[in-house]
Amino acid sequence: MEMIKVFGLPFSACTATVLACLNEKEVAYQVIPVDILAGDHKRPPFLSINPFGQIPAVQDGALTLIESRAIVKYLAKKFQGSTCDLLGKTIAEQAVVEQWCEVESQKFNPPFYAIIEQVFINPMKGLGPTDELLLDRNVEKLGKVLDVYEERLSKSKYLAGDSFTLADLHHLPYLHYLVNAVGKGDLVFSRSNVHAWWEDISSRPAWKKVAHNMKLPSLPCIPSQK
Amino acid sequence: MEMIKVFGLPFSACTATVLACLNEKEVAYQVIPVDILAGDHKRPPFLSINPFGQIPAVQDGALTLIESRAIVKYLAKKFQGSTCDLLGKTIAEQAVVEQWCEVESQKFNPPFYAIIEQVFINPMKGLGPTDELLLDRNVEKLGKVLDVYEERLSKSKYLAGDSFTLADLHHLPYLHYLVNAVGKGDLVFSRSNVHAWWEDISSRPAWKKVAHNMKLPSLPCIPSQK
Ligand SMILES: N[C@@H](CCC(=O)N[C@@H](CS)C(=O)NCC(=O)O)C(=O)O
Ligand SMILES: N[C@@H](CCC(=O)N[C@@H](CS)C(=O)NCC(=O)O)C(=O)O
Repeated sequence: MEMIKVFGLPFSACTATVLACLNEKEVAYQVIPVDILAGDHKRPPFLSINPFGQIPAVQDGALTLIESRAIVKYLAKKFQGSTCDLLGKTIAEQAVVEQWCEVESQKFNPPFYAIIEQVFINPMKGLGPTDELLLDRNVEKLGKVLDVYEERLSKSKYLAGDSFTLADLHHLPYLHYLVNAVGKGDLVFSRSNVHAWWEDISSRPAWKKVAHNMKLPSLPCIPSQK
Repeated sequence: MEMIKVFGLPFSACTATVLACLNEKEVAYQVIPVDILAGDHKRPPFLSINPFGQIPAVQDGALTLIESRAIVKYLAKKFQGSTCDLLGKTIAEQAVVEQWCEVESQKFNPPFYAIIEQVFINPMKGLGPTDELLLDRNVEKLGKVLDVYEERLSKSKYLAGDSFTLADLHHLPYLHYLVNAVGKGDLVFSRSNVHAWWEDISSRPAWKKVAHNMKLPSLPCIPSQK
């Protein structure tokens, strides 16, 4: 059988999500680099893999998939039997996992992304310096989301219940950058349950292998506030 | 058995998605209005149902769920046997459905929402008049996303393949507002495959019942450009 191909880059957060899932499942894969700094993602042949011109994409035999959240769901389902179960067992358990995955996508990610855009992406792309007002507004917004997580994590060890699932996994690359690259670790460390959860999930061997390779290009690493 | 409770309002697009799914599945439900114009969603008791203070939420027996995309996945799975299958059959088919659901969430929705915010939400909330530059930029962005749909729909009748799935269903309320409330129907009508797809999916009886009740509050209805 052919190995699963991951088109992406180790420093891309969405690629990291996919790699973390493959490591959790102990599935062999091959990373095919797409040089987004050189613009390869916006040109053929990559555009025929992802017409939206973004990484990651995955090829598993004849199946090509884009969108990190759809990809990890596919992988978690395909390899459901092996190692840890990332999806929940009953339909109700799976729904709670889906719900917290959606919370990441709809509530956590927009302010997170706005922060990364201000601190890292815009300066890197030459789109001007950080807009401090916008940055502050999104730090506050993300803080309110994490207040809900803090309350939730006072009642269950992981977001969707007693075990680690995709809902937790999806946060790993984003929290990694908040803590280790953009100096916003305080959002995590100032909330004791969120902090304990972060320490727990970020120490998983499957994740540590991915984190090790996540170095943001061309911007000096801002030391974590820890 | 108790009926499924939907906390929401008929004009809320995310509520409409849930109702469309319940109608497709021919499942009986009860809508419990949450007066968001009066701020009831930001106060107890609703905050104990959704700590993020948004509609919709669903209660099915002991299970409470938030986030429209997680809710409809739960409903489609729970009632998978009945009526039309909205999820796909094999794991690969399901992955393609998930992928196009994610495209709606990550690619289609952000520019769509920015348009609605500029034309409708900000003026309604007294947050100032429409920012025409921002509006134009997002119309252009959404147009590029729909160009990918146009190409995709030249090869398959629906987004995820030959049959109607959640991937199509998720677009119904948003396209409804684009076409019928904010005067941006041209984004749809100028692309022949997207247009044919919209005519097809919006004529489903399950959807027509929902669309009938979707009247935006306190803003005169802008006639569709059709
Ligand atoms: N919603 C997509 C987002 C993918 C995404 O934002 N990819 C970034 C790298 S992390 C990218 O390709 N950026 C380059 C660009 O958009 O031009 C996913 O989850 O896969
Ligand atoms: N991601 C959520 C979004 C829910 C949402 O935006 N709900 C709107 C109504 S359509 C709302 O409650 N708005 C009031 C507010 O946010 O204050 C979902 O899909 O359910």
